[in-house]
Amino acid sequence: MLRPYGPLPPSPYFTAMFELEIDATSGSARAGVLTLPHGTVETPAFMPVGTQGTVRALSPADLEAAGAEMILANTYHLHVRPGEDVVAKLGGLHRFMAWDRPLLTDSGGFQVFSLEGFRQVSEDGVEFQSHVDGGRRFLSPERATEIQWILGADVAMAFDHVVPGGADGAAARDAMDRTLRWLERCAKRHRELAGGALINQGPTGQTGPTGQTGPTSQTLWPILQGGTHLELRTEGLRRILDLGDWTGLAIGGLSVGEPKPVMYAMLEALEPRLPRECPRYLMGVGFPEDLVAAVERGTDLFDCVAPTRNGRNGSAFTSDGPVNIRNAVFREDNRPLDDACDCETCRSFSRGYLRHLFMAEELLGLRLLSLHNVRFLIRLAAEMRAAVRRDDLPRWAADWRRRYAQPETV
Amino acid sequence: MLRPYGPLPPSPYFTAMFELEIDATSGSARAGVLTLPHGTVETPAFMPVGTQGTVRALSPADLEAAGAEMILANTYHLHVRPGEDVVAKLGGLHRFMAWDRPLLTDSGGFQVFSLEGFRQVSEDGVEFQSHVDGGRRFLSPERATEIQWILGADVAMAFDHVVPGGADGAAARDAMDRTLRWLERCAKRHRELAGGALINQGPTGQTGPTGQTGPTSQTLWPILQGGTHLELRTEGLRRILDLGDWTGLAIGGLSVGEPKPVMYAMLEALEPRLPRECPRYLMGVGFPEDLVAAVERGTDLFDCVAPTRNGRNGSAFTSDGPVNIRNAVFREDNRPLDDACDCETCRSFSRGYLRHLFMAEELLGLRLLSLHNVRFLIRLAAEMRAAVRRDDLPRWAADWRRRYAQPETV
Repeated sequence: MLRPYGPLPPSPYFTAMFELEIDATSGSARAGVLTLPHGTVETPAFMPVGTQGTVRALSPADLEAAGAEMILANTYHLHVRPGEDVVAKLGGLHRFMAWDRPLLTDSGGFQVFSLEGFRQVSEDGVEFQSHVDGGRRFLSPERATEIQWILGADVAMAFDHVVPGGADGAAARDAMDRTLRWLERCAKRHRELAGGALINQGPTGQTGPTGQTGPTSQTLWPILQGGTHLELRTEGLRRILDLGDWTGLAIGGLSVGEPKPVMYAMLEALEPRLPRECPRYLMGVGFPEDLVAAVERGTDLFDCVAPTRNGRNGSAFTSDGPVNIRNAVFREDNRPLDDACDCETCRSFSRGYLRHLFMAEELLGLRLLSLHNVRFLIRLAAEMRAAVRRDDLPRWAADWRRRYAQPETV
Repeated sequence: MLRPYGPLPPSPYFTAMFELEIDATSGSARAGVLTLPHGTVETPAFMPVGTQGTVRALSPADLEAAGAEMILANTYHLHVRPGEDVVAKLGGLHRFMAWDRPLLTDSGGFQVFSLEGFRQVSEDGVEFQSHVDGGRRFLSPERATEIQWILGADVAMAFDHVVPGGADGAAARDAMDRTLRWLERCAKRHRELAGGALINQGPTGQTGPTGQTGPTSQTLWPILQGGTHLELRTEGLRRILDLGDWTGLAIGGLSVGEPKPVMYAMLEALEPRLPRECPRYLMGVGFPEDLVAAVERGTDLFDCVAPTRNGRNGSAFTSDGPVNIRNAVFREDNRPLDDACDCETCRSFSRGYLRHLFMAEELLGLRLLSLHNVRFLIRLAAEMRAAVRRDDLPRWAADWRRRYAQPETV
């Protein structure tokens, strides 16, 4: 009875697998279409995060209805539970999650480096204690690449050394150098797994990452580190580009505690140095104002747990700025959460009802606000795409900020 | 942007409002169509319970997809939070919940009598302590009727005195006598609210329960009590029928701790005495085997929190009997939860993935098992309808029991 998520049908994607086709620009901002084995992604795009193989409180059908074209899962979390072997036996990550569109796995670098006090870093890799069972585990560039190959997402990420936002130059350089050495090891292991190609552009019939036969492919994207130190970032970028022709490039280690203007300045400085046809993925960014600022500065892809985490806390993004639905002013408010939104939550329910769900601790509330917040960011990205295609992003952004930046209405 | 849930369109329902049309029988079992202001309900039917104005973990769209034609909400819960005044200001219970199909409210009797130690019963009504804020509240036949009128469900229930399953004859008689006296007071108050008619069969343009104009109607159903004492039940039934021509009749105070054979024997004894064209609602019954036994004994409507509560605990009804999805045998099980089921859960996800969701404490697991369990009972009722219409219920029930009654597969 299960829906088939097996081999993909023969597809025109193969002519342009893993390519981003930019079809419009507006200042530094770009709009385009990224082609991946499981489908296309219009950029700029926000990717919801399915940490443990599920975007918290949402179903695949909810995500499709919200317009998600690509989502994330976390290698660290899936490795410690249920284990990549279990995911493989259950048909690979797409089949496991019942998500048949593009999928990206983070490498686990960010997670293991967050386990302050529960990990030991060496040149070889990181030994850490599982947050689930306390057992000792080990992730290295090779292991992270192998696990991601087994999970079988469209895009795998290189295993990186992440430092906190305030790290000094020496610590940031050390982590960046290590990340670059690790990138070479990730790429080597990925090439071996893919049978020689840095990108596994297997023809139909080849054995793909999850063991099934079919045109399954996976690419590996590097992650640029370097903290808040521009000279490290530019050096790191040059060295990454010297290592090969990547199909995408991620900017990591931002939005990790540094002031927002620092992040914005860094993106501005990097933008002219980034290859044009390469999708630029700003990791961990998902507040509306940051998405707008980052698109203006030439980035294409974003992910963050903010929409779902905030949603579960009763906090909603709206066109008029954030609101907390628990606020007593919403008690008898018959209006939708956001009158400019087209999600199921805003089409069906009043603020008063949503508040009731949170006050009564009903599960439906967690889901409805998560769904709205995810739709909000996906729609925000779509509006920016449209504005870029009209070459009208500056005016659109000014209008958007004027409405959004109002003080919280509550 | 909110979907309209205002006045209903002129409808053929008015020619037969609140009528059950029996179109087939098989032994004592019946199949039919119940017409209510917000639509029709094919019987036998299982009604999911939306205690606080939401069926836990499920959305109205989920319930529609599961085939629910009628659901419940609880007067006690909605009275203490958010209050019927708030529900009315938010457009009445249908609009509040975004449920535009038939809706029934329980009177609160069952809930307040469960508040052992936090309530005082008098002939006038029940004073109790709110479980939300500890404040003193009062429910009487009149108040319960008024609150339900304000909530505006299609069917309101009379305020009853419920005794535990093991209550002795004296306690059961006392409660039954009180329930009958209270029924007269409920009916009187309901007639006043409805402008003279026991059923408010208002023509288009009349002011309905929630204050909106339109063909809104509500009926009131009595609840038969009497504990496990057949002579009390038969006397109670006779006295209820002497009070008027009811559009439905509920059997309360069963499935409250008494042995199952006692409940079955009671239903068998009552069946020949029940008016044929009156829908028979067995309150609080929702385990699959009980649904089958009760339909065989001539009842039509059922409600229970079991499918959602059990679902949240990881316990699922399946065609082969109940399973607990947390069991380690499901770790790498690629089969659907129930290969005979057509719900979203069984169409999309493997047992291994569902187990992972529960082990990882992911919200989606609670929803997917709740959805499946609700669909299971709704489909069970639909299969029994079909069997009755084929006049084949005994054989169907024997086959069903043979498969379902297997020991838990885990």
